Amino acid sequence: MGGNSPGGDDAATTDRFADDPAFAVHEGGKLSVTATRPIESIADLALTYTPGVARVSSAIAAEPELARRFTWAPRVVAVVSDGTAVLGLGDIGPTASLPVMEGKACLFREFADLSAVPVVLSTTDVDAIVETVAAIAPSFGGINLEDISAPRCFEIEARLRDRLDIPVMHDDQHGTAIVVLAALRNAAKVVGRELGDLRVVVAGAGAAGVACTKILVEAGIGDIAVADSKGVLHAGRDDLTPMKQWLVANTNRAGYAGTMVGALEGADVYLGLSGGSVPESAIASMAPDCIVFSLANPTPEVDPEMAAKYAAVVATGRSDLPNQINNVLAFPGVFRGAIDAGATSITEEMKLAAATAIADVVGDEVRADYVVPSPLDRRVAEAVAAAVGACAREQGVTR
Amino acid sequence: MGGNSPGGDDAATTDRFADDPAFAVHEGGKLSVTATRPIESIADLALTYTPGVARVSSAIAAEPELARRFTWAPRVVAVVSDGTAVLGLGDIGPTASLPVMEGKACLFREFADLSAVPVVLSTTDVDAIVETVAAIAPSFGGINLEDISAPRCFEIEARLRDRLDIPVMHDDQHGTAIVVLAALRNAAKVVGRELGDLRVVVAGAGAAGVACTKILVEAGIGDIAVADSKGVLHAGRDDLTPMKQWLVANTNRAGYAGTMVGALEGADVYLGLSGGSVPESAIASMAPDCIVFSLANPTPEVDPEMAAKYAAVVATGRSDLPNQINNVLAFPGVFRGAIDAGATSITEEMKLAAATAIADVVGDEVRADYVVPSPLDRRVAEAVAAAVGACAREQGVTR
Repeated sequence: MGGNSPGGDDAATTDRFADDPAFAVHEGGKLSVTATRPIESIADLALTYTPGVARVSSAIAAEPELARRFTWAPRVVAVVSDGTAVLGLGDIGPTASLPVMEGKACLFREFADLSAVPVVLSTTDVDAIVETVAAIAPSFGGINLEDISAPRCFEIEARLRDRLDIPVMHDDQHGTAIVVLAALRNAAKVVGRELGDLRVVVAGAGAAGVACTKILVEAGIGDIAVADSKGVLHAGRDDLTPMKQWLVANTNRAGYAGTMVGALEGADVYLGLSGGSVPESAIASMAPDCIVFSLANPTPEVDPEMAAKYAAVVATGRSDLPNQINNVLAFPGVFRGAIDAGATSITEEMKLAAATAIADVVGDEVRADYVVPSPLDRRVAEAVAAAVGACAREQGVTR
Repeated sequence: MGGNSPGGDDAATTDRFADDPAFAVHEGGKLSVTATRPIESIADLALTYTPGVARVSSAIAAEPELARRFTWAPRVVAVVSDGTAVLGLGDIGPTASLPVMEGKACLFREFADLSAVPVVLSTTDVDAIVETVAAIAPSFGGINLEDISAPRCFEIEARLRDRLDIPVMHDDQHGTAIVVLAALRNAAKVVGRELGDLRVVVAGAGAAGVACTKILVEAGIGDIAVADSKGVLHAGRDDLTPMKQWLVANTNRAGYAGTMVGALEGADVYLGLSGGSVPESAIASMAPDCIVFSLANPTPEVDPEMAAKYAAVVATGRSDLPNQINNVLAFPGVFRGAIDAGATSITEEMKLAAATAIADVVGDEVRADYVVPSPLDRRVAEAVAAAVGACAREQGVTR
């Protein structure tokens, strides 16, 4: 039997992975399901399983809300992916995406004390994904959609939010958006500007670009230009998906029809979510005291050293630099707060409250190289959970 | 945040459940997902999650078999139910079935050192269940179907076995069948009979009745009569499902067309899987040194004290009596053995090997009140796993 070690004949291949500690950390997988109480006697067996369990099941059958107290499901998050947009790797399929989903589940345990289960799917069909997640939903207290490619991710999330009465959130969209808004709130403080006065250029109109733009609009930033690989989105383009049409209707008031680089001239904020690289001249053309968030990983769109020559605040996705924009600052507390409050969904107001809570952990210590807390700061998830839960209760979106 | 305790206002209701320790055992649920390694530093984060995880995902994308080594999925069993046939409770739905599925997962951890995840479904449609389980299958190393009503359970299991290349087993069928065969092997020893010479009456043609009959046929018992609520199944009946037609074709050679009670006259073995009650006169009419397995829970079809007046061996499903026929003797070792061997399915031969392994744990100590090991006997799962794994390798049904 021998524990969790995978049987078999891997001895000959062990050396291939010995030089990279990431493989040692993944040996046998990163998760384990354990029983909260031991089964050491026939009496234990008769309470955990038959016949005692039948009394608990009968009670829940008569009064379904008792499941919140007597089952684990309300405190388990499904981390659901079809493996189509994994980190910087793209469409690598469900099996290869598993280590990422396991990692996410580790973070749920570590930062929110929630159980989470990777659910990777053998289908990429929108209808099939929606039906599958809806079918398994009674097993879980929340659905974290992960690494599902755009534009399918928008429809999948919207339909599941409509259909289910538990929190559903596509983290690549909203986790990123929440942390970006938190960072931008504090960056604006550093440069002594009001959030609403900033002119922002968002490079990238995928999952993260769309969600960041939406939350910035909701936070009161009026002047945003969003660019995809063909340039800034504007009403004159005839190649726009429904989501990009929404962006055009809610951004780019001036109707600018040029390139992303052109839009940067005089802009206050560059938000890079696209990969690729931005020339130094473009960053140099931005307004004084500008803000550069360049989030492509592992290679930011704007070289951080170069950016520092022009920008008052620089943030990236990298763990070896200050101001790391990391989703782990958002999703554990968001789900924990929503679940604790018995929230039936995660509203826009709850996301805004999460962003403010993250920014407030930095508080008066804010400075150019400290606009977001460290990903390991234990205060963050607790503060986010409290803010999200309070918002849910205030809005009455609880069971 | 505060651990796993469900938030909210249950204080007023606590007292309702204080008298029954089964509820205390279920408070907050019985399972937890934990990380196998802590995340205490930025370096840990960079190995468990980005950027380190990307190297592991890339390696698996290039070479999918590496998932067996570097993800948890191959050692996780999904315990799947639609809640339509739960214990003695019947169709109580997915949410109320959760405590049973959690209990099953506890037993997988305790007896097979495997992770298991309850997956309860909001649908009872056969096609939808098959599609859902197939869609989530890349997340798991085995599928334990549980408490799904007959006859849907037969089609669901058959289609999933065809479709998936991981072990799939409906435990209500085959777990019970394996333990019944193990017990009958030893009971035959006690009365000094050959298995093949016994005349058996199976009362009940649901999931367990069908599977027990099949495994008894495979084990060489030629003379079996199977009864449902309308009497013994025979070719003259016009109300037979496809599965019952199969039973007619493979049992009841004499074409007996009477009642279950009538069939008991002179029979060697009564196998009760039906509920209800059997009159004393029927048991008294059985052959000398007969064997009575009466498995309805919590009330056996045949009163065990009454049965002892006529039968040489009596077994029940009850934990407070000797010879408890309990599925926990089978399923943990079956899945552990299949998973360790990299089996792509659970064959009939593997089930027969499991039954023999369970019977052999009793070995020479066999006596009338000890035909199966205790459910807590730690030797059982290990012996079953070894036998099932060896059988899988011998048959070549491994990856």
